[in-house]
Amino acid sequence: MSNTLFPVILGILGLLSAYIIYIRVRSSSEGEGRVKEIGDEIHLGAMVFMSAEYKRLALFCLVCIVALYFSLGWQTAISFLIGALCSGSAGFIGMYSATKANVRTAVAAKEKGASDALTIAFFGGSIMGLTVAAMGLVGIGVLFFYFGKNVETIHAIEGFAMGASSVALFSRVGGGIFTKSADVGADLVGKVEAGIPEDDPRNPGVIADNVGDNVGDVAGMGSDIFESYCGSMIACIALAASMTSAAITNLGGNQYMLQFMPLALASLGIICSLLGIITVKIYSSKSAEIALRYGTIGSAVIFVVLSYFLIKFMNVSYGVWIAVLVGAVGGIIVGLVTEYYTGGSPVEKIAKDGETGSATVLISGLATGMQSVAIPVFTIVSIIFISNYFAGLYGVGIAAVGMLSTVGITMAIDAYGPVADNAGGIAEMAEMGKETRMITDSLDEVGNTTAAIGKGFAISAAALAALALISAYIEKISVADESFVLAINDPLVLCGMFLGGIFPFLVSSMTMTAVGDAAFDMIKEIRRQFKEIPGLLEGKAKPDTARCVDIATRAALKKMIAPGALAVLSPVIIGFSLGPKALGGMLGGALICCVMMALMMSNAGGAWDNAKKFVEKGNFGGKGSDVHKAAVVGDTVGDPLKDTSGPSMNILINVMAIVSLVIAPLLI
Amino acid sequence: MSNTLFPVILGILGLLSAYIIYIRVRSSSEGEGRVKEIGDEIHLGAMVFMSAEYKRLALFCLVCIVALYFSLGWQTAISFLIGALCSGSAGFIGMYSATKANVRTAVAAKEKGASDALTIAFFGGSIMGLTVAAMGLVGIGVLFFYFGKNVETIHAIEGFAMGASSVALFSRVGGGIFTKSADVGADLVGKVEAGIPEDDPRNPGVIADNVGDNVGDVAGMGSDIFESYCGSMIACIALAASMTSAAITNLGGNQYMLQFMPLALASLGIICSLLGIITVKIYSSKSAEIALRYGTIGSAVIFVVLSYFLIKFMNVSYGVWIAVLVGAVGGIIVGLVTEYYTGGSPVEKIAKDGETGSATVLISGLATGMQSVAIPVFTIVSIIFISNYFAGLYGVGIAAVGMLSTVGITMAIDAYGPVADNAGGIAEMAEMGKETRMITDSLDEVGNTTAAIGKGFAISAAALAALALISAYIEKISVADESFVLAINDPLVLCGMFLGGIFPFLVSSMTMTAVGDAAFDMIKEIRRQFKEIPGLLEGKAKPDTARCVDIATRAALKKMIAPGALAVLSPVIIGFSLGPKALGGMLGGALICCVMMALMMSNAGGAWDNAKKFVEKGNFGGKGSDVHKAAVVGDTVGDPLKDTSGPSMNILINVMAIVSLVIAPLLI
Repeated sequence: MSNTLFPVILGILGLLSAYIIYIRVRSSSEGEGRVKEIGDEIHLGAMVFMSAEYKRLALFCLVCIVALYFSLGWQTAISFLIGALCSGSAGFIGMYSATKANVRTAVAAKEKGASDALTIAFFGGSIMGLTVAAMGLVGIGVLFFYFGKNVETIHAIEGFAMGASSVALFSRVGGGIFTKSADVGADLVGKVEAGIPEDDPRNPGVIADNVGDNVGDVAGMGSDIFESYCGSMIACIALAASMTSAAITNLGGNQYMLQFMPLALASLGIICSLLGIITVKIYSSKSAEIALRYGTIGSAVIFVVLSYFLIKFMNVSYGVWIAVLVGAVGGIIVGLVTEYYTGGSPVEKIAKDGETGSATVLISGLATGMQSVAIPVFTIVSIIFISNYFAGLYGVGIAAVGMLSTVGITMAIDAYGPVADNAGGIAEMAEMGKETRMITDSLDEVGNTTAAIGKGFAISAAALAALALISAYIEKISVADESFVLAINDPLVLCGMFLGGIFPFLVSSMTMTAVGDAAFDMIKEIRRQFKEIPGLLEGKAKPDTARCVDIATRAALKKMIAPGALAVLSPVIIGFSLGPKALGGMLGGALICCVMMALMMSNAGGAWDNAKKFVEKGNFGGKGSDVHKAAVVGDTVGDPLKDTSGPSMNILINVMAIVSLVIAPLLI
Repeated sequence: MSNTLFPVILGILGLLSAYIIYIRVRSSSEGEGRVKEIGDEIHLGAMVFMSAEYKRLALFCLVCIVALYFSLGWQTAISFLIGALCSGSAGFIGMYSATKANVRTAVAAKEKGASDALTIAFFGGSIMGLTVAAMGLVGIGVLFFYFGKNVETIHAIEGFAMGASSVALFSRVGGGIFTKSADVGADLVGKVEAGIPEDDPRNPGVIADNVGDNVGDVAGMGSDIFESYCGSMIACIALAASMTSAAITNLGGNQYMLQFMPLALASLGIICSLLGIITVKIYSSKSAEIALRYGTIGSAVIFVVLSYFLIKFMNVSYGVWIAVLVGAVGGIIVGLVTEYYTGGSPVEKIAKDGETGSATVLISGLATGMQSVAIPVFTIVSIIFISNYFAGLYGVGIAAVGMLSTVGITMAIDAYGPVADNAGGIAEMAEMGKETRMITDSLDEVGNTTAAIGKGFAISAAALAALALISAYIEKISVADESFVLAINDPLVLCGMFLGGIFPFLVSSMTMTAVGDAAFDMIKEIRRQFKEIPGLLEGKAKPDTARCVDIATRAALKKMIAPGALAVLSPVIIGFSLGPKALGGMLGGALICCVMMALMMSNAGGAWDNAKKFVEKGNFGGKGSDVHKAAVVGDTVGDPLKDTSGPSMNILINVMAIVSLVIAPLLI
């Protein structure tokens, strides 16, 4: 049984690697004068936001821990605490390093060239990636070591996922509101009204915008992936724990092995991620795109091949490996489809529709978003169908684990994007010259594509993780109550499904409104500064950037509460008032609608963003033309869709599912 | 058994009343010169489109009839034919009279004043309302008389609903594409580029726009409501036919009575609708709003009261009456909520957000649409819950019938809107003077509110009708295969649910793209005419309006095929390839997503429309201000959402459900 400590050991190894990479990043020059100053401002703004956010989160977690302690015992309560701590520290460490890496990327681009800048930016992201993977392994590994041996305590581990998901929800929603209110506000006044370029140092909102990239796209995305990663592992553990002996025999004959399987796969995954990171470093002298692509696809391929031997070694059915395979391949397919819709011919069509104004840009962008749900959902359906055929509902959970095991490298590439973006912003603000800006722009462009792929990947992973959690919920209730059937034509289930469908729309509406309102305040503040600070537009005076950071911080902290509370409380209220059947229906309805809305909003937003960039490259009149103005409107509308509302769908469904799974024993 | 002919007799009575009203409308003056000319142009354009559309529909129906004949027998085939004919002729008669009423409304406004104009416009709509109700009663009544007595033939009646829904689908999608491509095209070039007012006779697209109001909002809406109306009745018949004897005893002890119940209620409904129409006529000298409100609410109240005695007289449980009650009340609640979201404070907020440009108008409009799903869906859930509690799933069907029984008056008021709108257009084009325009504007304004309420009503009715049809499908399969359970955690059901969720998004995308593309062609044609026809903008030359009508016609006929085929074929393909479980799941997933998307798109569109009107009344700078420009963009984006994609959701889910119900015996 000592091999159950392997995940913990590999997790610690992962943390060590992250630390070594951090030392390497820190040793790079952070520049001096204005460059260092801007870097510090962004770093500080992000830290201030994070600590204010975490203070509120601590209060929320305290309430949950007390409630869990009295309803389900100390084991679940302590698991929740560890889950929340792991999620929080992964987000914190990742963002801390990202804000250190961005200024160093800019300096490296100026002093050493593209290859070195790529290395720093990617290393900045890798710290996040490795931390996410390692924290999950260490946290779940330790809990599994203590609680996993006993059938009565194993369900306590589910508290970990609930803790992780709750922190993720607030980070994602809060970070999303922060980043987009700053972005929309700074862009609308700066670019459209004052006619100054993006990231211009005269714009008071520009520091807030850069802080937002870190709290939203780094910390928010990190906690999002972290919770899917942990959720899928814990769903597998829960599914294996409530498996019948016939099903266990079918899959390999050893329940304990099946429970340990997700941890074993994730341990293998972190090794493959490290190999991937090394691959990127080796190819970084070629092109950024090739290096990143070789890194991700390479590590996924190695992972799939090695997992075959691992599964064979553990004496488990090859059906489980098929699930790993379809999960990993499915993730890549969804990523590529996302890339097409946010970068291929649909984007050119949207740009072309700018010839008849912003209304047609919006209509075709929405239509693109709606159309883009088809193939990814079809892929998810295929994954469910195949993995279930070979390994039952447990297989669906394993497919999610298969998709997420190489999270170390996929998350690294995701977090690389905002680091490169920030480096560009710093280069512009500190006036580091055109050549530096060209290098950071090229890094940023690759980052945009990888971000789009990462989003598609995150949605499909979250969908599968949620599905596995929902299955675990149903199994858990079924074990206690054999007559429990969630039939669609049962009116309670049906009512639950309709109610579940409401939440994704309501949460999207709340987060979009929050961005709209905060952006409105931001716009008024930036306008005020342009008017009241003499010499600001001429570059003779400094803007009051801290005030803009403050507006975004307050808005994010205030507006993240309602959607967060809705997500956590709705399963509790429906479960205790209408019973476990209605709750099961609710999860089903919410799952379908969350996946659809997440895909639609993310892809529409991504397509508008790139349509604007396509015009800016000189197509259909280029920058400053009427087509460009129309495309900017599309991009602005897409911002909250793709970076606030869309991503919050992933966590919404996972929070609902994990809360249901945890409270299930109380509903029987 | 002779009383089973009552519905047919009342249906014929309804048709006679419609004819008498038509004679009354026709006897009113149609004006002369330019007025008559424009009226004729609109009438002709609508007729040309309808006949071209019906030719294609005939071909489609022929294929379906042959397929049904060889798979399910002549009874189903003939029912399909009758359903298609009833739906088609209801749409045709309604639109024929609406295009006669519009010009006469304009003339009455000029020559006789507001009260007479209201009467003509409302009578124009009433012909549609009564025809829809009567055609349903006659068609289903006759089929029930012949097929209803025998358990083996009663399911053939379902073919009627399939015929009605198929015609409705193409009418709604085709009409929706026509009306919005003309509207968007004419508005963008006319109002925004050329700076001429709406409905200006110099605009080549303006006749097409007015034709569109008739083919989309009159014929399309009519066939939409017709298919929900018939679908809910037929679902009740099917549910009663596959009821267990215990359930029958519970509800009143006579299966035949339960099968006949929806027809009895609808017969009562048409009488109440006639009373409502008389009420409106009586109050027409007061204000349009009061007259219409008294008419609808009055007839609903009378219907609910009388239905209590009818149900008692038929010796059926009072639980069925409760279902009627919650259906009728629920419909009104959803209508009022729709009115709030498309007319209350959310609209003012959207208008205010125009101060920071069109992007914020769009964000807050989308957020409003998303938020607006909550209460209507909650109302639908309550209707399901209560009606099922008192009368089982049969009760859900009866609730839908209860909501739709007074369709004669609700549809009359719906169709009144586009007649009043057209009258205003004609008054503007024929330069009938400011006073006439003021009267038609006030009639139109009331029409906009009633249209919004009507849409909310149509969505909830369609949702309940579809749900009843889906329940009938499940019951039908369950009767043959007792082990048939649609459990959410069954992977086949789950895969079906995900696949079902795709269709609403895909169909919305297709129809939006169709509008966008057709509007693009329209814009180019209008621009060409402004450029190439000398003296057009100065009012010295006539535009080539026929060409614009032709563009919209071609686009609509071409682009309605793909979404229509998708809706009809998807249940067939999934049913035969993945089986009845996956098909059941698909219907569940599609139902949830269709309802959500329909509400979101209709309400967002309605809110943008009225936000623009709110600005035009002089708020936030009024017409011509920057806020107004921003609001116009919102309105333009909302147009295809609210009048093309949104409404097609209602029929999409009903077509899928009825096709599944009809092919169910082949899947067992």
